[in-house]
Amino acid sequence: MMNGAQYKESLRKIHPTIYYMGEKIECVVDHPMTKPHVNSAAMTYEMACDPKFENLMTGISHLTGKRVNRFTHIQWSTDDLVNKVKMMRMIAQQTGTCFQRCVGLDAMNATYITTYNMDKKYGTDFHQRFKAWMTQVQENDWMVAGAMTDVKGDRSLKPSHQADPDLFTHIVERREDGVVIRGAKAHMTGMANSHWMLILPTTNLLPGDEDYAVACAVPVDDEHITHVFGRQTNDQRRLQGDLDTGNAEYAIVGGETLTVLDNVFVPWERVFMDGQIDFAQDYVARFAAYHRQNYGGCKVGNSDVLIGATSMIAKMNGTNKAGHIKEKLIEMMHLAETMYCCSLACSYEGVKEECGSYYVNTLLANEVKLNCTRNMYEISRLAHEVAGGFIATLPHEWDTNSEITGPYVKKFFAGNAKYDALDRIKIARLLENMSGGTALAESMHGAGSPQAMRIMIYREENLPAKEAMACRLANVDLSKYED
Amino acid sequence: MMNGAQYKESLRKIHPTIYYMGEKIECVVDHPMTKPHVNSAAMTYEMACDPKFENLMTGISHLTGKRVNRFTHIQWSTDDLVNKVKMMRMIAQQTGTCFQRCVGLDAMNATYITTYNMDKKYGTDFHQRFKAWMTQVQENDWMVAGAMTDVKGDRSLKPSHQADPDLFTHIVERREDGVVIRGAKAHMTGMANSHWMLILPTTNLLPGDEDYAVACAVPVDDEHITHVFGRQTNDQRRLQGDLDTGNAEYAIVGGETLTVLDNVFVPWERVFMDGQIDFAQDYVARFAAYHRQNYGGCKVGNSDVLIGATSMIAKMNGTNKAGHIKEKLIEMMHLAETMYCCSLACSYEGVKEECGSYYVNTLLANEVKLNCTRNMYEISRLAHEVAGGFIATLPHEWDTNSEITGPYVKKFFAGNAKYDALDRIKIARLLENMSGGTALAESMHGAGSPQAMRIMIYREENLPAKEAMACRLANVDLSKYED
Amino acid sequence: MMNGAQYKESLRKIHPTIYYMGEKIECVVDHPMTKPHVNSAAMTYEMACDPKFENLMTGISHLTGKRVNRFTHIQWSTDDLVNKVKMMRMIAQQTGTCFQRCVGLDAMNATYITTYNMDKKYGTDFHQRFKAWMTQVQENDWMVAGAMTDVKGDRSLKPSHQADPDLFTHIVERREDGVVIRGAKAHMTGMANSHWMLILPTTNLLPGDEDYAVACAVPVDDEHITHVFGRQTNDQRRLQGDLDTGNAEYAIVGGETLTVLDNVFVPWERVFMDGQIDFAQDYVARFAAYHRQNYGGCKVGNSDVLIGATSMIAKMNGTNKAGHIKEKLIEMMHLAETMYCCSLACSYEGVKEECGSYYVNTLLANEVKLNCTRNMYEISRLAHEVAGGFIATLPHEWDTNSEITGPYVKKFFAGNAKYDALDRIKIARLLENMSGGTALAESMHGAGSPQAMRIMIYREENLPAKEAMACRLANVDLSKYED
Amino acid sequence: MMNGAQYKESLRKIHPTIYYMGEKIECVVDHPMTKPHVNSAAMTYEMACDPKFENLMTGISHLTGKRVNRFTHIQWSTDDLVNKVKMMRMIAQQTGTCFQRCVGLDAMNATYITTYNMDKKYGTDFHQRFKAWMTQVQENDWMVAGAMTDVKGDRSLKPSHQADPDLFTHIVERREDGVVIRGAKAHMTGMANSHWMLILPTTNLLPGDEDYAVACAVPVDDEHITHVFGRQTNDQRRLQGDLDTGNAEYAIVGGETLTVLDNVFVPWERVFMDGQIDFAQDYVARFAAYHRQNYGGCKVGNSDVLIGATSMIAKMNGTNKAGHIKEKLIEMMHLAETMYCCSLACSYEGVKEECGSYYVNTLLANEVKLNCTRNMYEISRLAHEVAGGFIATLPHEWDTNSEITGPYVKKFFAGNAKYDALDRIKIARLLENMSGGTALAESMHGAGSPQAMRIMIYREENLPAKEAMACRLANVDLSKYED
Repeated sequence: MMNGAQYKESLRKIHPTIYYMGEKIECVVDHPMTKPHVNSAAMTYEMACDPKFENLMTGISHLTGKRVNRFTHIQWSTDDLVNKVKMMRMIAQQTGTCFQRCVGLDAMNATYITTYNMDKKYGTDFHQRFKAWMTQVQENDWMVAGAMTDVKGDRSLKPSHQADPDLFTHIVERREDGVVIRGAKAHMTGMANSHWMLILPTTNLLPGDEDYAVACAVPVDDEHITHVFGRQTNDQRRLQGDLDTGNAEYAIVGGETLTVLDNVFVPWERVFMDGQIDFAQDYVARFAAYHRQNYGGCKVGNSDVLIGATSMIAKMNGTNKAGHIKEKLIEMMHLAETMYCCSLACSYEGVKEECGSYYVNTLLANEVKLNCTRNMYEISRLAHEVAGGFIATLPHEWDTNSEITGPYVKKFFAGNAKYDALDRIKIARLLENMSGGTALAESMHGAGSPQAMRIMIYREENLPAKEAMACRLANVDLSKYED
Repeated sequence: MMNGAQYKESLRKIHPTIYYMGEKIECVVDHPMTKPHVNSAAMTYEMACDPKFENLMTGISHLTGKRVNRFTHIQWSTDDLVNKVKMMRMIAQQTGTCFQRCVGLDAMNATYITTYNMDKKYGTDFHQRFKAWMTQVQENDWMVAGAMTDVKGDRSLKPSHQADPDLFTHIVERREDGVVIRGAKAHMTGMANSHWMLILPTTNLLPGDEDYAVACAVPVDDEHITHVFGRQTNDQRRLQGDLDTGNAEYAIVGGETLTVLDNVFVPWERVFMDGQIDFAQDYVARFAAYHRQNYGGCKVGNSDVLIGATSMIAKMNGTNKAGHIKEKLIEMMHLAETMYCCSLACSYEGVKEECGSYYVNTLLANEVKLNCTRNMYEISRLAHEVAGGFIATLPHEWDTNSEITGPYVKKFFAGNAKYDALDRIKIARLLENMSGGTALAESMHGAGSPQAMRIMIYREENLPAKEAMACRLANVDLSKYED
Repeated sequence: MMNGAQYKESLRKIHPTIYYMGEKIECVVDHPMTKPHVNSAAMTYEMACDPKFENLMTGISHLTGKRVNRFTHIQWSTDDLVNKVKMMRMIAQQTGTCFQRCVGLDAMNATYITTYNMDKKYGTDFHQRFKAWMTQVQENDWMVAGAMTDVKGDRSLKPSHQADPDLFTHIVERREDGVVIRGAKAHMTGMANSHWMLILPTTNLLPGDEDYAVACAVPVDDEHITHVFGRQTNDQRRLQGDLDTGNAEYAIVGGETLTVLDNVFVPWERVFMDGQIDFAQDYVARFAAYHRQNYGGCKVGNSDVLIGATSMIAKMNGTNKAGHIKEKLIEMMHLAETMYCCSLACSYEGVKEECGSYYVNTLLANEVKLNCTRNMYEISRLAHEVAGGFIATLPHEWDTNSEITGPYVKKFFAGNAKYDALDRIKIARLLENMSGGTALAESMHGAGSPQAMRIMIYREENLPAKEAMACRLANVDLSKYED
Repeated sequence: MMNGAQYKESLRKIHPTIYYMGEKIECVVDHPMTKPHVNSAAMTYEMACDPKFENLMTGISHLTGKRVNRFTHIQWSTDDLVNKVKMMRMIAQQTGTCFQRCVGLDAMNATYITTYNMDKKYGTDFHQRFKAWMTQVQENDWMVAGAMTDVKGDRSLKPSHQADPDLFTHIVERREDGVVIRGAKAHMTGMANSHWMLILPTTNLLPGDEDYAVACAVPVDDEHITHVFGRQTNDQRRLQGDLDTGNAEYAIVGGETLTVLDNVFVPWERVFMDGQIDFAQDYVARFAAYHRQNYGGCKVGNSDVLIGATSMIAKMNGTNKAGHIKEKLIEMMHLAETMYCCSLACSYEGVKEECGSYYVNTLLANEVKLNCTRNMYEISRLAHEVAGGFIATLPHEWDTNSEITGPYVKKFFAGNAKYDALDRIKIARLLENMSGGTALAESMHGAGSPQAMRIMIYREENLPAKEAMACRLANVDLSKYED
């Protein structure tokens, strides 16, 4: 296992093509825009090497029998599933933001199950290939970006019906030694500072879509890959100093990229699906369920920080004794813990798959995320309410630091005299940046948009069984109405 | 273990003093007002004797090593805690209402822990006494009413400061052979058809309140006890027929009583607390947590029925194909499963107490119930929206059955022609009665009012730890502000 | 104008055929089930004769120049529209429930406009006929039931496609002297104690539905009409005493009937629409808008009572000083006043129609009611939360009055010692009955179900104009995309 | 009246001291940070000169009898109050953001009433002074910043108890020719591009706070005043191009400043309050009510734009035909129109003050804003849900425009092929910037924080009257309990 420093060193050795503001990012470890995201991901390495977190941060690989970072671990028990959630809350309490590495973890676990199931039906050898690659991932403690979400074009059309066939990633050529793929993956969390990406399909597929049924592992710095680093709310602040970013060390969300795959060659040993359209939906649903599970971990950890910031700002404002402030803090905690409960429940209710690994309860995993798409907005709204309007009008940090205006700023942004005005500004900036644009949108759409959860909930619930319960109690003979 | 018939037979042998509509109820098994509640409680006996439910419905007593009904079982593992929730959802799907027996179960489990802890501190022998009585409960498969909630008088005053000292149950005399208690317990679910009640304190106590720190077991038919059977929404309907009650077999909620204790003598062997005011708050919190755990079981089972009724009524109305109807059903399921997740989470996260039994996670158990106080209202609101206005204006069943008006009713309450109008009315009546007054108020106040949960959440959350997380990320040196 | 006593006397003179509990109701003024509804409607007569309410309760008829009860008044100014709302809030504060008479008022106003518009297009003389009848209504101060809602059968089928053609009211015969109609009207508020009903269509109609395009006035006691009085939540309580009904004088909601029209003959002078299917949708929309306008009047008046009851119960419980209680009362007031604002806005923004009368703003009138379908549930939920669980478990009033159990009840339901326990019970019963089943369902579906409002809002808003605003600001040339 | 160009020209002639990013802003008309705010304010001048908007944009001054810009108009009828709301919605539909000028308008109207009332009680001549200055404001068509909100320090302490006396603006010296004031005003909307500011107190005052009871008019470019221009979410984007700002012409919110008053001299003729602490609360409440009235105008106009953007993005994504998308658009419109209703209602229900001007209904004005603090967040949440996750990960505009990455961006952000990908990005950026951080926080705290509204609602409602209504209906004799 690598520690944080080793992880950063390893990133210096690869040279992905990443653009931001019209220029190439030479090194993600040093570039001010990517640096905090690297720091956040590094936390997943650093804490894993700390013996006191061993239980939550690591697992014993069933492939090698060695202790591995939990982010490269195939879930091998319900304890693994539960510990994943607890680990995520714990790390998020440290970083106050996304640490990115779960996407690859979830993609690997979904692929583990799906390759097994495909092989069983079709006699292919995807599972063996995948295990071989997974072993390398564990041995090298690679960070793997889960690359599912295609850019998708017209949402009402299937992949093969799009005006441009590249709007979903697809195989454009099958060679003796491998395949060539083309397309683009959007919102690629942690991609810029990963070693590998694990590509998987993004939607259920129908006959005619066979070329879109592709899963494979590709190095992030493949020469035919271009990453465009996405901008975030207030991203320019981190180019100008630390104060106004609120969380200078780790920033917000995950640092997403648009990752363009422009005729990328993948050798067969790293191809894990090739044309099995009947497995696409299940593959996607599994990845999504594993990934939705997480949101009651990391978002709750982030909420812990935001609740703490809100409580601090109330003290600094002199309002912390007011009953209605306390009620709002309780409401924030309530909303956060509800998400946590859903994550725990879907983990504990996980089941062993035929391949031996453990999979979360699909229905309950979708509950996690659907709650998240509302609760995080409400938590943020309450944070705003308690904080006060100055989070929206605070001066630029250069004005706070200026000899001319700085004294005014520090004099007039004083709250409760016990606290330094500058500390009050710091907490306000943390709160502002955690509760704003990108962070909210990520709560909404990360791991899938709410309608995707609703569809899954409808599919997973047994509505006819419920109808039968009602009819029995109401003394209605349902058999009359059966076709 | 008794089965349902044996349970009913056992009730014929005791003769509690119960009044309703100004008259004594001679036999709760036969009286039309109490009969459905007896039927519902009988389900806890009947299913326990069915081998296919053995896992969920029974446990192995650590006291006797024998298999006992789970409703008399001391929680001896986290599996026990989880199975309790799953059992409750399952039974509720059968009865569509409260089956009452959990209150005593939770009281017994809270008493088990508290008596152990009191003995440890004070060298008393409450735990031994309690185990002896518990053994009898298990052997006889008694139904025990948990008797916590005092009538409470002026909510701003502690017990010993009330204008009338009897507004909280208290010891009025200590004799050589036992104590004499006086007071009244309100909202006593299942009391009318229980064998015993287990009395415990209702609030934290301060010096001066010593006489109010009393726990003990008393037979329901003690001669100094008078029960007044509480009325419910639409309770008179069950005196007039089955159709309009919706759920004629099991009715709604639990059939609560006001139970007046008018100088009841309790021998020492059934006294489990006597004056230990410093244990009252913990005792209450434990009972409350165990009890709040349940609401994501039984209320979700009830919601399953209500969702099923809503889905049926949509079919019968001819609206089931509309997108917005489907969205509303999904929302109902989402709200229900969220409660279920909270119950599972607080159970799986339960811990072993020093006495050997298992206790739920207090914080998460409070989350269950706080969600319930909102979600059940919203589920009901959605059920109303889908059902249509006729749930509020349907005729009396005597008019439905009348030779004069019946044909009109059946002709004009037809919906989708595939379904009998009478079946449509039946489902509407079920839905109406499950989503109305008493059922809602019970979701609000059963197992404690929402403010009680908020206080517990505030107490259980570590707010200073969260403040520290925020300050660390915002680069605020919190040590400056420590006193 | 009649006063309350004269109104009741007038009801004794007509003999509609009304059934309840399998028996004919001989006189609605005296029958315990209908009496409170009569009392409530009588308030619209009584207050109109009180000079201090003249401004709100009456208007000057444009037909006769005489002062008439506002409930028979054609809206002749925006002040009329506004005063209608204020009148309704005022009366509802007196009755705590529906006073029924607005339905006919709204039906008459919608008919006034629609008959004018039909005549203009088709050269018919419906408007003249209608004015003649309206003059009689005003002269006699009749109470008119607005009879729109058909029973509707399969909601996915138009009237002429139903399995049974009678599921929407239709003309079955056209004679020289008039028409014969058949069908049934459901949820007929105030019908049992009205003098006349004004029948209008219930949905938009398509070719083939011509016989369903019928509007006409019919006396409530026509020999071919049978009314089945609908039951309500807790309706039996009013047969057993006053205490448990909460609001003994006026009861809850409006006392709805299923009104069966079994070949009713209507002479031409009282037929106001006959086959004009192209006017059905507009007719319905106008009636609905006028009627939805009301809900920010009457429901807010009812809410004022419920808020008052909640504030009283808090005092009686001893919780009124708690900050969270005050917050809940504020929230209840906020939700109520928001509905009131919508009603005022749609009234002030009313416009003069070509026929001279005033019509509300359709869009904003639909906002009123859509808010009502949520706010009333939330207000009720908050009332429950503040009140406490005893609203769901209080004893039957015969037990409260019994010599045996009465003393216990009065002793143990004491709260703050300043208040009589019996008064606390009275307020609790009022609160219970105002916040329960029928009252909620009426808030949901009265004046149309929420989806009907949503459809109207979508229809009334100018979405392309909004798109154009966005495109202009985003510098998107929308003309490129026009077809 | 000035037109837009004349307004901008007039700003070039004054030289306020404004800092941003550590440097002085030389000219607000040209500086990229302030320019869009100037553009937005200029719309209030430009539209007033367009004859087709004369009715909404102008009024006849009661001071001079001349036609004046409505933003300098004293409300002289309820029509004026209503037209103000409609004007604001109309302008906001053009700018998609705050146009700032209402704050001064509301401050002037509150001052008009308060000076009259103070003079009446104390025989002072504030009203005359104020009218003289107002006449100049109208004649010169000045933009006036309403300067109420002090920085407030410890929110639990009154002004004279703060650790630093300057945390509320106060008089530090009374001279023969005027007063000297010190302090700072926070969140000063439009200040940077106003001609004058009108200072008023920020809270109710108690004995000892006399020096804080000060109102006066001061030129924005007074030499003892320093403005620090507050930063906003994504403010740096406007320094780098137009695309990513979404609304390049008008930006977001109002461009707030911290305005430091460092011993500013004000001659007596511009002092409108001096020590009358007993009028502070009423003064503040009136300003707040006038200002809260606006939010159902401007925020609804902004919402119209946001709803339009959401509808466009759905079309561009290919999701506009989905039922759930339509439901979300309806919900957004519903939430917006509800705010509009509240604004209209509080305006129409306005009353004439003794001084002759018109004042809104205080209670209903507070309802407007309390709804706004929730509805704007929910509207934004729904906009995010419909838009999709790419609003949070779109590339920097320099990458969109780059020769290297631009082709990728435009290829892969294509949606429905009918629409240019760049147009899709433009709409997404508009939506992102309108629904993010500063815009939300402004909806929460502009015109006062929610708790301020709750306190006002509690104060304005007549709770005892409601209690009496409930008691009358419940047959409780309230007179027994009167003290």
